[in-house]
Amino acid sequence: MTRTRVCVIGCGFGGLEAVRALARDEAIDITLIDRTNHHLFQPLLYQVATAGLSAPAISAPIRHILRQQVASGRLTVLQAEVMAIDAPGRAVVLDDGERLPYDQLIVAAGATHSYFGHDDWAEHARGLKTLADAFDLRARVIGAFERAERCADPVERAAWMNFVVVGAGPTGVEMAGTLSEIAQKTLSREFRRIDSTQARVVLIEGSEHVLGSFVPALRQRAREQLQRLHVDVRTGAQVTGIDATGVHYSTRENGEARAHHLPSRTVVWAAGVAGSPLGRSLADSAGATLDRAGRVIVQPDLSLAGHPEITVIGDLASAKSHNPGHGRGEPSVVPGVSPAAKQMGRLAAANLLRRLKGEPTRNFRYIDYGNLATIGRRAAVVDLAVPVFGALRFSGFFAWVFWLFAHIYFLIGFRNRLVVLIDWAWAYFTFERHARVVAVPMAADAAPASPVGPDEARPA
Amino acid sequence: MTRTRVCVIGCGFGGLEAVRALARDEAIDITLIDRTNHHLFQPLLYQVATAGLSAPAISAPIRHILRQQVASGRLTVLQAEVMAIDAPGRAVVLDDGERLPYDQLIVAAGATHSYFGHDDWAEHARGLKTLADAFDLRARVIGAFERAERCADPVERAAWMNFVVVGAGPTGVEMAGTLSEIAQKTLSREFRRIDSTQARVVLIEGSEHVLGSFVPALRQRAREQLQRLHVDVRTGAQVTGIDATGVHYSTRENGEARAHHLPSRTVVWAAGVAGSPLGRSLADSAGATLDRAGRVIVQPDLSLAGHPEITVIGDLASAKSHNPGHGRGEPSVVPGVSPAAKQMGRLAAANLLRRLKGEPTRNFRYIDYGNLATIGRRAAVVDLAVPVFGALRFSGFFAWVFWLFAHIYFLIGFRNRLVVLIDWAWAYFTFERHARVVAVPMAADAAPASPVGPDEARPA
Repeated sequence: MTRTRVCVIGCGFGGLEAVRALARDEAIDITLIDRTNHHLFQPLLYQVATAGLSAPAISAPIRHILRQQVASGRLTVLQAEVMAIDAPGRAVVLDDGERLPYDQLIVAAGATHSYFGHDDWAEHARGLKTLADAFDLRARVIGAFERAERCADPVERAAWMNFVVVGAGPTGVEMAGTLSEIAQKTLSREFRRIDSTQARVVLIEGSEHVLGSFVPALRQRAREQLQRLHVDVRTGAQVTGIDATGVHYSTRENGEARAHHLPSRTVVWAAGVAGSPLGRSLADSAGATLDRAGRVIVQPDLSLAGHPEITVIGDLASAKSHNPGHGRGEPSVVPGVSPAAKQMGRLAAANLLRRLKGEPTRNFRYIDYGNLATIGRRAAVVDLAVPVFGALRFSGFFAWVFWLFAHIYFLIGFRNRLVVLIDWAWAYFTFERHARVVAVPMAADAAPASPVGPDEARPA
Repeated sequence: MTRTRVCVIGCGFGGLEAVRALARDEAIDITLIDRTNHHLFQPLLYQVATAGLSAPAISAPIRHILRQQVASGRLTVLQAEVMAIDAPGRAVVLDDGERLPYDQLIVAAGATHSYFGHDDWAEHARGLKTLADAFDLRARVIGAFERAERCADPVERAAWMNFVVVGAGPTGVEMAGTLSEIAQKTLSREFRRIDSTQARVVLIEGSEHVLGSFVPALRQRAREQLQRLHVDVRTGAQVTGIDATGVHYSTRENGEARAHHLPSRTVVWAAGVAGSPLGRSLADSAGATLDRAGRVIVQPDLSLAGHPEITVIGDLASAKSHNPGHGRGEPSVVPGVSPAAKQMGRLAAANLLRRLKGEPTRNFRYIDYGNLATIGRRAAVVDLAVPVFGALRFSGFFAWVFWLFAHIYFLIGFRNRLVVLIDWAWAYFTFERHARVVAVPMAADAAPASPVGPDEARPA
């Protein structure tokens, strides 16, 4: 029997689902390639960055998750970086030059940060996509308070105690709320020269709204909950520059542009997202069309136009949901969230098997179960799509409990669920963040290149 | 009231005990300086390196452990690197140039690796002293199996699957036993191109004995238990070189020297220990005498000759125990173990307070409760000094259980004890090592500079 060689790039939510579904078929020989050795539960990555959870609590070795599939002889796992996709030659090119031939390809390479063309902002404003990002942010946040404690100059000290989060989507809101909790509760009374509760957490957002993907009532709840947590929320603020001294941004007041400078040594980037560079490789070698964010525009069945053997799923795909009921005939844009990636992974596997049998493929229908975001201790917003009943929306303590159990439920592995539950119960009652441990202190380049002045607003 | 300014350098076992004891006295104003933000339970560091425990399970933020002492106004904690000690000026010089004046100084800066003058070995053979070391080793070990899986050349593949541990003291024995368990159990059936149980773990030791600090019967038990765990034990082997191709060593057979080369891409250094570089600073500025390992030779009361205001404790101190009964009048050398460091910390604090009151100081008496070492799953050796009864020695499963609970008992914090107990129970029944997660893959320099030949023995 000749087995069909399927290559899957990326073991996020989409790639993992696809591999699990395909490995049930003994006619398929899968090679899964990932840059790291672990599947990461990204929705809780901000907890690693803010020292609430250890890295192994939210990640699991790919080989371990898929050990049965490997043992069955249907799956090979390779830790490697894919440098290019050679669509005409039907091969994937790895970092060491190895060419992996495929009959069918599923690209689930995910997304990366976008600094909107300002790549020089990256070194001053770390994003949050990988465990390495989370460790770096943890080192910067904890290091900032340590530097402030050692700092004799009040202006410089203030800059170390200002934390800026750019982007008020779910990640930005979670980060801002948790940073404020750390300053107000976890670290209070642990320093002697500084008062950690005087730290300032500023959340900057270009649009007028916090959590813009939610309905207006919940956006307002989120803003109120953030303010109760002492987060300084500044919407309608366009970032114009990020450097060693802090964040430059502009606002419009009475039609007039005003320039602001917010001195800060710790800036978190939670704003822009762009498709993986493999999107560009697909454009070059398979003629794929990319959207403005560098994501690959896919056919209704998630395959590539002209290349039915290539399927793109997850955050790298610019997909529309072809849902006869939901969108009233008009296809709706699929959001970059983990349930969408999982659903795409399952459809990609099913369509691949249909294609091999000569059956027609099916179009992607995104089933939206709702939208959750947490803000901090005891605060969250929940917007559920309940069949028949309609929308179920609530916020506050019960929303937080719902968010908590929903995330624990979807965590990989029984052990991880147990550990995270214990960690959270512990943190809830003690305010401790047990993972406040920095192995490699923040890079020296976190220190400013030039002196910092106080916050100032001047006409642009 | 003028308070006595006490500076404590290092928050290991010795420094932490000293601070806790001194902070009970309101006439003392302590400044504790550590390079990292955490106290580390070093005896379990090898578990972090071998992915059995997460970093936060064996470490705790210094500020958190000592939060009551900070809140009482008697303690300032600074995360800083001490560059030098200015003994004539009675000040400690920090990395940013800040000078901290002191009235009394306790130096507990610990030890570092010694490559016996071959500092070029360091990049190929990482030691295990810090969390950064442990993460690096974890990345190398897990990365080696991943590289082997991707490797087409059988000679190179074998080099990735050879693991060499240099030094058969407690750390080397623990590392070798655990690495073998990972290859034999944890990873078996998780790879497709390689068979992880074919990996070779070699333990190289210059002397004729494994665990040379134990009595001969237990040394022999340890060797047998290692061999049962498939560890290749090579005693009487002098390492002559470590480079990108592996380890070069020589043995003597029938009076003739033979040179060997062991191809390996993953070498763990568990052999030499040297005092912190601050020992050199004390020699230069306070006339301290160093022993061959760079440790500071202290007076019987742990102070420095000619500088009663300076006390050196822990692994940096070359101390003798003045124990009238135990050593039959002859002072015995104090080993570099955590109980000794803790006992020194307590005496240093007590002697400091005695000195302030004009009372005579007391000499250090090391109370040796015994010696434990674990070898791997269900294997350990225990040599207890029981008062009146004498020595209690046992090995095997019960020794392992004893070792396990002894280590959990001494772990910092109730939460950490609970977490480690759960982790170990889980690992015991599943063979899983839950922390098999690599955030930052091994450095590119881990790849060899030149091709590797097979293991060969030739006359020197």
